[in-house]
Amino acid sequence: MESLLAELRAAVGAGAVLTDADVTAGYRRDMMPLAPHGQPLAVVLPSSTAQVRAVVRACAAAGTPIVPRGAGSGLSGAANAVEGCVVLVTTKMDAILEIDPDNRLAVVEPGVVNLDLRAAVEKHGLFYPPDPSSYDWCTIGGNLATNAGGLCCVKYGVTTDSVLGLEVVLADGELLRTGRRTVKGVAGYDLTKLFVGSEGTLGVITRATLALRPLPQAPSTLVATFGSTAAAGAAVSRVVAEGVVPSLMEIMDRTSIRAVEQHLRTDLNAGAALLLCQSDSGGEAARRELAAIEQACVGAGAELVYATDDLAEGRDLLTARRAVLTALEVYGAWLTDDVCVPRTRIADLITGCERIAAEVGLRVAVVGHAGDGNMHPTIVYDPSSQDEFARAERAFDEILGLGLALGGTVTGEHGVGKVKREWLAKEIGPVGLRVHRDVKRALDPENLFNPGSMFSP
Amino acid sequence: MESLLAELRAAVGAGAVLTDADVTAGYRRDMMPLAPHGQPLAVVLPSSTAQVRAVVRACAAAGTPIVPRGAGSGLSGAANAVEGCVVLVTTKMDAILEIDPDNRLAVVEPGVVNLDLRAAVEKHGLFYPPDPSSYDWCTIGGNLATNAGGLCCVKYGVTTDSVLGLEVVLADGELLRTGRRTVKGVAGYDLTKLFVGSEGTLGVITRATLALRPLPQAPSTLVATFGSTAAAGAAVSRVVAEGVVPSLMEIMDRTSIRAVEQHLRTDLNAGAALLLCQSDSGGEAARRELAAIEQACVGAGAELVYATDDLAEGRDLLTARRAVLTALEVYGAWLTDDVCVPRTRIADLITGCERIAAEVGLRVAVVGHAGDGNMHPTIVYDPSSQDEFARAERAFDEILGLGLALGGTVTGEHGVGKVKREWLAKEIGPVGLRVHRDVKRALDPENLFNPGSMFSP
Repeated sequence: MESLLAELRAAVGAGAVLTDADVTAGYRRDMMPLAPHGQPLAVVLPSSTAQVRAVVRACAAAGTPIVPRGAGSGLSGAANAVEGCVVLVTTKMDAILEIDPDNRLAVVEPGVVNLDLRAAVEKHGLFYPPDPSSYDWCTIGGNLATNAGGLCCVKYGVTTDSVLGLEVVLADGELLRTGRRTVKGVAGYDLTKLFVGSEGTLGVITRATLALRPLPQAPSTLVATFGSTAAAGAAVSRVVAEGVVPSLMEIMDRTSIRAVEQHLRTDLNAGAALLLCQSDSGGEAARRELAAIEQACVGAGAELVYATDDLAEGRDLLTARRAVLTALEVYGAWLTDDVCVPRTRIADLITGCERIAAEVGLRVAVVGHAGDGNMHPTIVYDPSSQDEFARAERAFDEILGLGLALGGTVTGEHGVGKVKREWLAKEIGPVGLRVHRDVKRALDPENLFNPGSMFSP
Repeated sequence: MESLLAELRAAVGAGAVLTDADVTAGYRRDMMPLAPHGQPLAVVLPSSTAQVRAVVRACAAAGTPIVPRGAGSGLSGAANAVEGCVVLVTTKMDAILEIDPDNRLAVVEPGVVNLDLRAAVEKHGLFYPPDPSSYDWCTIGGNLATNAGGLCCVKYGVTTDSVLGLEVVLADGELLRTGRRTVKGVAGYDLTKLFVGSEGTLGVITRATLALRPLPQAPSTLVATFGSTAAAGAAVSRVVAEGVVPSLMEIMDRTSIRAVEQHLRTDLNAGAALLLCQSDSGGEAARRELAAIEQACVGAGAELVYATDDLAEGRDLLTARRAVLTALEVYGAWLTDDVCVPRTRIADLITGCERIAAEVGLRVAVVGHAGDGNMHPTIVYDPSSQDEFARAERAFDEILGLGLALGGTVTGEHGVGKVKREWLAKEIGPVGLRVHRDVKRALDPENLFNPGSMFSP
C-alpha cells in the first residue's frame, strides 16, 4: 500500500493525500446514520482532471477501490468509505469555467457549491433550478452523482433535466466526453443521463455543461391549512387536476406543525396539515395560478387560505417549512426517509406514517414536496438508546414498504447508496438488477468505483 | 430459415408474418433516401408483449437479427432492414392502456400514433408535448426509439423529457421494467433514458408510461421579417438573452421563403429571413412575452413585425412554415439534414449553407427550430440524375461538418441510424465509441438488435 500512497502523492501532491485517521474520519460517511462505512486507506483531493486520471490509474493498478465524494451532504451513504478504499474528494475542483448567457449554459468543475453557481448565474439574469436543501454547502458533483432534486422540481425538474454534457474519468483512466453544448441532440446513447444519478459507481465526473433558465419572477406565496390529512391530499390532487404548475408546493403534517409551533413559539392555526405554494410566473399569471390553487384548497375543505405577493411575507411563511428539521431536534436525533408516491396517494402516505409511528412508538413527522409526491417522513429517536435506534430503523424500512405499496419508489431524490440496496432490488426486480450489473460490468469491469454501493456486484 | 418462419408463425399467427417480397418491400426502409437497406427475411407484426418476447427468442435462437420498426417515418435509416433480418413492426400494438389525469400520466403501447395520443389526452385537458412533423402518422414507439423532438422542444423538451418508465424486451426475451409512475425517482441507473434514443439497438420497447402536462393556453403568434440573415440570427440571440421562452420559434431562410412564395402565390415581404414565434402562456403573460420578442426583433433590425392573438390568423401565419417541404417539391426531391448548433450560431449555419449550396450547385433551403438551434437544411435535387444525387450527398455531409465546426451536433432530433454512423464516430471520438460498444455488448451480447445501426460493432 505504501507504493500506492507514494503514487497518489506524486499525482496530487503530498498535501492533498490525507492518511491520518483523525483527519480521514471526517470523510468516512455522509449524513445518513444508517448506512455502513469503512476506514479509507487515504483521502485524496485532486485539483484537476489530469490528477483525477492519475489517481484512478494508480488505484486501478493497485486494485484499490475508489469512492468519489463531494461535500458529503448525501443522505444515502453513497459517498461512505468502503474498507481500505481511496476516497476521491472533488471539492478542490471548484471553478466555474464559463457562463454563456447567450446560449444559457454554464461549464463547471464538480466541486462548485450549488449556491455559488446559483449566485454566479443570477448576476446574468439566469437560474440553475436544482435546489436540494443542502444547497448552501452541497456540490454540483454530488448533485450530478445523486441526480439531486429539491423544492424546484415540481416546475423545473431534477438535476438530470439541467445537464447538457459531462466529462467523466473512466475506470481505466480514459476521459469520456458525453453530450454537447446545444440544447437538443440525439447523437448516440444518452450517456449523460446514465452517469447522472449513478452515484459514483461508473466513473468520476470532472466537468459538467449545465443548461440554465431565465431567472423567474419574484414568487407570490400561498398558505393553506386543513383540518384533516385527507383534505390536504385532496387539495393537492385538485391543484394537479386543475393543471396549475406552482413553482413550489410543500406539505407539512400534524407532527411537523406541532414541532414547528413549539420551536417558533407561534400558532400556525393548522389542525392536521399545511400546504405552502408559490408561483414565480409574475403579475397576472401568478395571480391566476394562486387563485386557482386557492379555489382548489377551498374546494377540498381548507380551513384558512392566505396569499401574498409580498416577498418578505412570503419568505416568513416559508420559515415554518424550513424550520421543521431544526424543530424536531428538540425531541432527539432525526432520520429522514425519502419516498415518492403518485400525487393522489400523498394523504395515504401520511396516514400510513401515523400508523407506523404509533406501531414503533416514535415520532414521525412528514414533510415533503407535495407537488411531485416526494415525501420525507422524518423519524425522531433518542440516539443514546439502542432500542430507539432499532425502532427508527424499523420505521425507516416500513415507510419504504408503504411507499412501494402505494405505487411509489423507494427514493425520490436522495438515492440508494449503501442504505437502500435491498430496497432497490425489491423495486426493480431480478431483471432490472441484472441489467444494472451488466451496465456496471461494461463500464467498470474490475468494480473499481464505489463497489457494493447501490447494488451488490 | 423455414424453421424460424414456422416459429414466427406460431408466435404471432401466420397472418402477421409477411414474407412476400412485394409486401415486405414496403418495410425495407424509412424516409431517408441516403441510408443503406437490405432485404428482410420476414416482417412480423406482433400484437402483444408476449408475442414480441416469442419473436425475440426465436430470432435469438436462430441467430437472425431483428430490426424494430414503428411507422417508418424516420429520417436516419434506423428502421431500415439489414439483409436477412426480421423486421419487427409494432404498429399493431396500438392501445392507449390508461390515462390517469389525477397523476398526469398515460400508459401506452408502442404502436399508438402520436396524434391519437395527443387527441386522447386533450379530452382530459392534458398535453403530450413531443410533436415531430410526422405526428399524424409516426408512432410513440418510434418517437421513443429516436428521442423525437418537434416544434414544441424550445419550451417543453424532447421525448425523453416526457417518459417516466418503459417495458422493454431484452435480447434474451426477458422483460425489463424501467422507471416508475411517479414524477420523481432516482432508484438505480436511469435505464429509461438509456433506452430512449437507442434506435432499436438495445431492445424492443413494448410499453411506455408517459408524463403529461396541463394543456397550454391557445397560442398567440408573431411573425418578423429580416433583410439579412445576420439580423434574424441576432434576433434569436436577443430573445434568448432576454429570457423569453416562446412555445414555438421557427426560422425560414431566403430559399425557403422564395419557394413558399411561389408555391402559395403570395408575397411574404421577407427579404432574407422570417421568424415565427408563439406564446402559449395566455393573457397578459403571452402579451408580455410577445412584446419582449417584438422588441428583440426590432432591436435586431427586423423590417416588419406583426403579432396576433387570433387563433385562425396565427394558424395562417404558420402555413408558410408548414408549406416549405411541399413547396420545395416543385424543384425536385428533397433531402432533409438535421444539425443542432448553439443558438448564437444560427446565422453562421445559414450563411454556411448558402456557401455549400453554391459550391455543389444545388438549392439548399434552411428551415429550423430557431429557439433551440436545431436546423434542417434541406437539399433539393433531381432524383433521376446520379450526378445531382451525388452532389446532394456531398452537401449533406458538408452541412454536418459545418454543424460540428460551429460547436454543434450532427443530429438534433432525427438520429444517427444507418446514415450518420461515421459522423457519430467523429462527434463522440474513440472513447465515446468504445463506451457505446461496451453498453451495446452488455445489453445485446450477440448483436441481435439492429446490428450495425448507429455504430459499427
